[in-house]
Amino acid sequence: MIILVINAGSSSLKYQLYNMKEESVLAQGRVERIGMDSSIVTHEPEGKSEVRLVSEILDHNTAVKRVIDLLVHKEHGVLGSINEIKAVGHRVVHGGEIFKHSTLVTPDVKLEIRKLFDLAPLHNPPALMGIAAVDTNMAEVPQVVVFDTAFHQSMPQESFLYAIPMVLYRRHKIRRYGFHGTSHHYVSQQAAEFLGKPLESIKMVSCHIGNGASCTAIMDGKSFDTSMGLTPLEGLMMGTRSGDLDPAIVPFTMNKEDLTLSEVNSMLNKHSGMLAISGISSDMREITDAMQEGDKQAKLAFDMYTYRLRKYIGAYAAAMNGMDTLVFTAGVGENSVVLRKAVCDGLTFMGIELDETRNAERSKEARVISSDNSRVTVLVVPTNEELLIARDTYQIVQNRA
Amino acid sequence: MIILVINAGSSSLKYQLYNMKEESVLAQGRVERIGMDSSIVTHEPEGKSEVRLVSEILDHNTAVKRVIDLLVHKEHGVLGSINEIKAVGHRVVHGGEIFKHSTLVTPDVKLEIRKLFDLAPLHNPPALMGIAAVDTNMAEVPQVVVFDTAFHQSMPQESFLYAIPMVLYRRHKIRRYGFHGTSHHYVSQQAAEFLGKPLESIKMVSCHIGNGASCTAIMDGKSFDTSMGLTPLEGLMMGTRSGDLDPAIVPFTMNKEDLTLSEVNSMLNKHSGMLAISGISSDMREITDAMQEGDKQAKLAFDMYTYRLRKYIGAYAAAMNGMDTLVFTAGVGENSVVLRKAVCDGLTFMGIELDETRNAERSKEARVISSDNSRVTVLVVPTNEELLIARDTYQIVQNRA
Repeated sequence: MIILVINAGSSSLKYQLYNMKEESVLAQGRVERIGMDSSIVTHEPEGKSEVRLVSEILDHNTAVKRVIDLLVHKEHGVLGSINEIKAVGHRVVHGGEIFKHSTLVTPDVKLEIRKLFDLAPLHNPPALMGIAAVDTNMAEVPQVVVFDTAFHQSMPQESFLYAIPMVLYRRHKIRRYGFHGTSHHYVSQQAAEFLGKPLESIKMVSCHIGNGASCTAIMDGKSFDTSMGLTPLEGLMMGTRSGDLDPAIVPFTMNKEDLTLSEVNSMLNKHSGMLAISGISSDMREITDAMQEGDKQAKLAFDMYTYRLRKYIGAYAAAMNGMDTLVFTAGVGENSVVLRKAVCDGLTFMGIELDETRNAERSKEARVISSDNSRVTVLVVPTNEELLIARDTYQIVQNRA
Repeated sequence: MIILVINAGSSSLKYQLYNMKEESVLAQGRVERIGMDSSIVTHEPEGKSEVRLVSEILDHNTAVKRVIDLLVHKEHGVLGSINEIKAVGHRVVHGGEIFKHSTLVTPDVKLEIRKLFDLAPLHNPPALMGIAAVDTNMAEVPQVVVFDTAFHQSMPQESFLYAIPMVLYRRHKIRRYGFHGTSHHYVSQQAAEFLGKPLESIKMVSCHIGNGASCTAIMDGKSFDTSMGLTPLEGLMMGTRSGDLDPAIVPFTMNKEDLTLSEVNSMLNKHSGMLAISGISSDMREITDAMQEGDKQAKLAFDMYTYRLRKYIGAYAAAMNGMDTLVFTAGVGENSVVLRKAVCDGLTFMGIELDETRNAERSKEARVISSDNSRVTVLVVPTNEELLIARDTYQIVQNRA
């Protein structure tokens, strides 16, 4: 079965075309600058050269049309006909409390996604535009939605509730949702498979460390707690996000710097984190390069970042009364040897013992980086959210048939 | 040497009179409703009956005058003359980055405390009024100020900085200060003495659990990290404070409930925490009573509270790469058998093993409540902030002489 995976943002649309028989990628690409006169489509068909087209693409509908045209294109295409695509899977950021699993798109599902616009004003509207574009261009193809929040819907109340008036939860659903769920779910499955153990038997902390970053405690095969909250602002220090801070800093800063609430919100999301402390970059590679050249602010940013990550790992070990597996994933988690070392070297009290040679190896495969004596198995597991979306889509469409 | 300890709030003033020879309390009491026509003075002289007077006390100056009158009163007093008081020690909430230790009051010190009004608008002004009142009523007596933040000034940068633009720290000193420092300092000293070990050799997590609550990681005899932040709002769930939450909840709630920023701030400080979740009370005894009678919201509040406390203990163990001593103190920490059990029972992975019989004992003395096999020694240590203020005052005035 051939499945198209779509990740629609407000001005971008990424896609991957999967052949589910061997879970291989037939083509992938992205449309950027949607809504502008110089939109860019970058298309990478498997075994053929990359194509880059610049043209006016004013909406998601046109973007999907261009993607289809390229997929069946005589020269650049990988399909004989659009009818070969048997299902489309969409990444949707926010599934609220309604969506605890991936699901087939129906008119009701679209309505519910719309109801969640309030909780994800930047992310859910373009996802719905992506769905509508597929409705228009491939009317008969079943669609599946996969939510970034769904994996975390298993959290117990003491993890997901904030200690604020209950009416705010009952009336407005203000609670911890958590994000990166598709990634945490995927790497936890991969880790269990790699270890040859049932996922249900593992107490795991999964660290998704990219430009955004979150940490999840996984127990009984389910998300038990996670560091992002109502929004992706909470939790770990990130590339440009502050992560945890005293909420009283919001009014204090507004007052001291004469800023509006939305300016402070923007500061905390876009001008904080690694970027703010290092004064150099939000990119971990640039930070660690600068640090190794003796830059003190870069070193401070790195130390704060790894210190906070260690505290979360300790907190989640306490949340589960123990842990046996620690997973690093996503851009930084998969690639930063120094980050993993800094985190693990501070957690020897928990029985974590890194093997420096293993940690320094480069590979695209899941692998162990702890020593054979380590009481906690430390893994690097490459994430693949698109593949999990394709798998969920495949399974749901199969079961329907 | 006889020392008077004063803790001045905006409409209250508590006092204790110490004889430092045997560190005994000669008298203690409080003035309440300062600024109103029916102010109340409650005076408890040692070995005599309690006195309660209602009269108009419009300012702190008059309050201190009344306290002195009672201390030398023929019937209710414990001193022959005011001149027997050789020093006065004041509790001051905020010492900013200036005050890393207790210090003798000078005109410069008063100026610095005034400069910190911004950081502690509710607490530092009445402290300064208390000092001025002593200036007026006991002009020649040396005064010492003891700061709630001072003990935490040893925190390293990665603990005290927030991941927000550095300019906010440089320009406005927005950072983690932490509070309850006098209590954390006192119980850490008591714990070390009780265990017969140098404080510098202990990795301790100190849990000050009262109506306000904070947790401190203490290493090398110094505060290494603490849960309260720029203000006492951050960190653990408390009686009426939310503790940690996604800062994005502030604008979200303002928008959804049409509240002003100051209303949300007030909600997070006064109408959140245990009170908000239980819907019953901010008092742990009432919560646990209701829980034991089957109240589900009370159970949820208790579970959230203890869960979050466990996570902080785990986080601080990770911060120090291990811990050997866990201390409970303050109203709830010293008295709630069920709270200590709920916290410790979830931390057996760290080698914490509670002895249920020891935990259930009532005593006013420091004591061990872990089993003899426990890898972490768990202690209950009654706090006594006034005594530490008296000791610091005594020592500083002695050294000056």
